[in-house]
Amino acid sequence: MSKTLGDLGERGIYRTLLTPRYQHVEGFGDDSAVLGRGLVASTDSCPTPLIEKLEPGISAFHEGWLLATINLSDLAAAGAEPLGLVVNYTLPATTTTEYFKQLMDGVDACAAKHRTQVVGGDLRDGKEKYLTATAIGWAEPRLSRRGAEPGDALLLIGDPGYLWAWAATREREDLPKQLRRRLWKRASRPKAQLKAGRLLAWKGLAAAAVDVSDGLYSSVRLLTEANGLGADLAGEIELDAELAKVCELAGLDSFALGQTWGDWSLLVAVHPEHLEDAILALKMAKIGVRRIGTMTDSHTELTVGGVEWTGVDQERFSERSWQGGGIEEKIRALQKNSSGSV
Amino acid sequence: MSKTLGDLGERGIYRTLLTPRYQHVEGFGDDSAVLGRGLVASTDSCPTPLIEKLEPGISAFHEGWLLATINLSDLAAAGAEPLGLVVNYTLPATTTTEYFKQLMDGVDACAAKHRTQVVGGDLRDGKEKYLTATAIGWAEPRLSRRGAEPGDALLLIGDPGYLWAWAATREREDLPKQLRRRLWKRASRPKAQLKAGRLLAWKGLAAAAVDVSDGLYSSVRLLTEANGLGADLAGEIELDAELAKVCELAGLDSFALGQTWGDWSLLVAVHPEHLEDAILALKMAKIGVRRIGTMTDSHTELTVGGVEWTGVDQERFSERSWQGGGIEEKIRALQKNSSGSV
Repeated sequence: MSKTLGDLGERGIYRTLLTPRYQHVEGFGDDSAVLGRGLVASTDSCPTPLIEKLEPGISAFHEGWLLATINLSDLAAAGAEPLGLVVNYTLPATTTTEYFKQLMDGVDACAAKHRTQVVGGDLRDGKEKYLTATAIGWAEPRLSRRGAEPGDALLLIGDPGYLWAWAATREREDLPKQLRRRLWKRASRPKAQLKAGRLLAWKGLAAAAVDVSDGLYSSVRLLTEANGLGADLAGEIELDAELAKVCELAGLDSFALGQTWGDWSLLVAVHPEHLEDAILALKMAKIGVRRIGTMTDSHTELTVGGVEWTGVDQERFSERSWQGGGIEEKIRALQKNSSGSV
Repeated sequence: MSKTLGDLGERGIYRTLLTPRYQHVEGFGDDSAVLGRGLVASTDSCPTPLIEKLEPGISAFHEGWLLATINLSDLAAAGAEPLGLVVNYTLPATTTTEYFKQLMDGVDACAAKHRTQVVGGDLRDGKEKYLTATAIGWAEPRLSRRGAEPGDALLLIGDPGYLWAWAATREREDLPKQLRRRLWKRASRPKAQLKAGRLLAWKGLAAAAVDVSDGLYSSVRLLTEANGLGADLAGEIELDAELAKVCELAGLDSFALGQTWGDWSLLVAVHPEHLEDAILALKMAKIGVRRIGTMTDSHTELTVGGVEWTGVDQERFSERSWQGGGIEEKIRALQKNSSGSV
C-alpha cells in the first residue's frame, strides 16, 4: 500500500517531501515566503475556530477576524509592514448574505486595526466553506527563523493565554462578569504582533523569530531546529495581571496556559547584548514581553529547568492534529496539578 | 427567510455586497489586486478540473499545472511580470504521497514554464481537498478592465478551444492518433498569456484587458460593463489550423468552440490606431491573435453581427455554475447546427 500524508505526519512531509524540493528557495521554512525586492508573502487558511467549535454559529465576524490575524501574524514574524491582503472564499450557495457580510466585516475590521486592507480576492461556490487569505508585506531588514545563537534569550511577545483561558472558564458563572467579558473580547479579537516584529527588525534587535501558531512547544522546536540548537525554559511564564487572576480563581496553571496557541504571540531569540534594549523598546511601545528561556547548544534538546520538556504538539496530519478535536482534554490539562503540558 | 448567496448569484453578490464595500479600492473588479508600488496580486482556487471530471484520477499533475496557470493568467491580464507563487493546500490525511508529489510537480513545472517559482505556502489536513494559490507580480504600466472606447478592436489572444475540443472528441477513436495526442497535450497544459500581457502593457498597445476564465461571453460582458460600452462580434473565430481540422472531422462549430473556457486566453481592447502594431508585435512573438469584434457605444449590449448574442454563462452561485455539471450538454452545444452558444 502506498504511503499517505497521514503516515508521514507534518514533520515527515516537511522533511521528506518539501525540504528536498524547496530548500533552495530563499526563506524556505520561514513563516513568510520571500519574493525578492524586500517583499514577503504569507498564505494561511482559517480552520474552524476553537470558538466556533465550542459555541457554534456565533462567530462569522470572529472567523473573518481570525483569517486576517493568522496571515498578518506570519508577516509579523518576518518583521514586515503589510501592503495588503487578498482573500479567497469558497462558500456553499446556501450561505446567507448576513453570514457573508459579517465574515467580510471581521476581515475588514481586523485589517483596518492592523493599518492595512483587503485589496482583492476570489469568491466561488463549493460544497463546503473554505476560507483562505494571503498577506503581502515589505520587510527590509527581514526577520527569519535562522540567526539564533547559544545563550540568546527567548522572548515571548504579545499576550498569550487568553483564548484557552476563555475556553476553560466559559461556563464558570462564578467568575466576575467583567473579567469574563474581557476574556471573551481578547479571545475573539486576537491581534498579530506586527508592531513588535517591525520594531525589532528595524532596530536590529532580534536574532530570529517565529510566530506562535500551533502552541509554544511547537514554536520553540521550530526555532531550535532551524538553528541546530536547544532551548531551556524557565518553567514559569508571567501572564497579564487579569490572566493571573483567572488562574487563581479558576485553578489554572499559568505555565500551561502560557504555552497555548490562539493569541498569535511572537517568539523571538535575542542576543544577550541586545536584550535590555529589546525589552525596553517593546515596553515603551506598550507591547507585552516576557523572557521565557534561553537558547542552548544542546542540539534540538528542549528542557524546562534542565529537565526534558514534553509539550503536546498540534502536529498537522497526525492524531494530535488540532482539527482532530480533543478540546475538553486539552482544557483539563490546563488545570493546576495536571501534567501541565498543552 | 434570509437571502442566500445562491439567491443573489455571482452578479448580484458583486453588485450588492462587494461593490459598496470595496469599490474605493484601487483595481477593484480587475483580475489582479493592486498593492501599490507597481505590485499586483491575484488569488484563485482550483476547482475540480474538467479533465478530472471526465477521466477521474489521471490528473494530479494537471491539477497542479492548472492551479498555477489560473493564477498566472490573472497576472497576464494586468500585464504583470510574476515575482512568485504562494500555494495553499488542504488535503485529507489519506492523500497518497505519490498524489501530493505529482501535484507539486505540476505546479512547479508550470511555474518554471512561466519563468517563475513557488516561493512558499501552507499545507494542512482537512476533510476535503482544497487547492488555492496566490500569484504576486510587478505591473508597471498596469493593464486594467477599464480604458476601452467605442470603436476599439476586440482581440482574442492565445489559442482558444483546445480543452473543449479534447473533451468533445476524447472518445472519437476515428480521429488521427497524433491529432488526439496533440489535443490532450494542449488541453492538459494550458499556459497563461503572460508574455502577451507584458508586451502590450509595456508598448502601451492595449486599452483594456481581461482573461478568459469563465468563457468568452462572460469576459466580453465584464469588459463592456467595466467601460459602460457594448460589443459586436464578427460571428467567426479563427482557430488554430489543427483545431480547424478537428472541427471539420468531428463536426464541431468553430465559433462555439472559440467561445469556450479552459485555455486561458486574454481578451484585449485595442484602440484603432494601435491595432496594426499590436497584431504585429504579437505575431512576431509567435503569440496567437485574432480580431473577434468591436467595442460599441450601445451600453452593455452584446451582439453578433448586430443580432443579440446570448452566450451561456458560467455564472458562479447559480444553476449554471460550472461546478454544477452539465458537461455532456455543453459538449452537444459545440456541434454544428446546435444553438452555438457555449
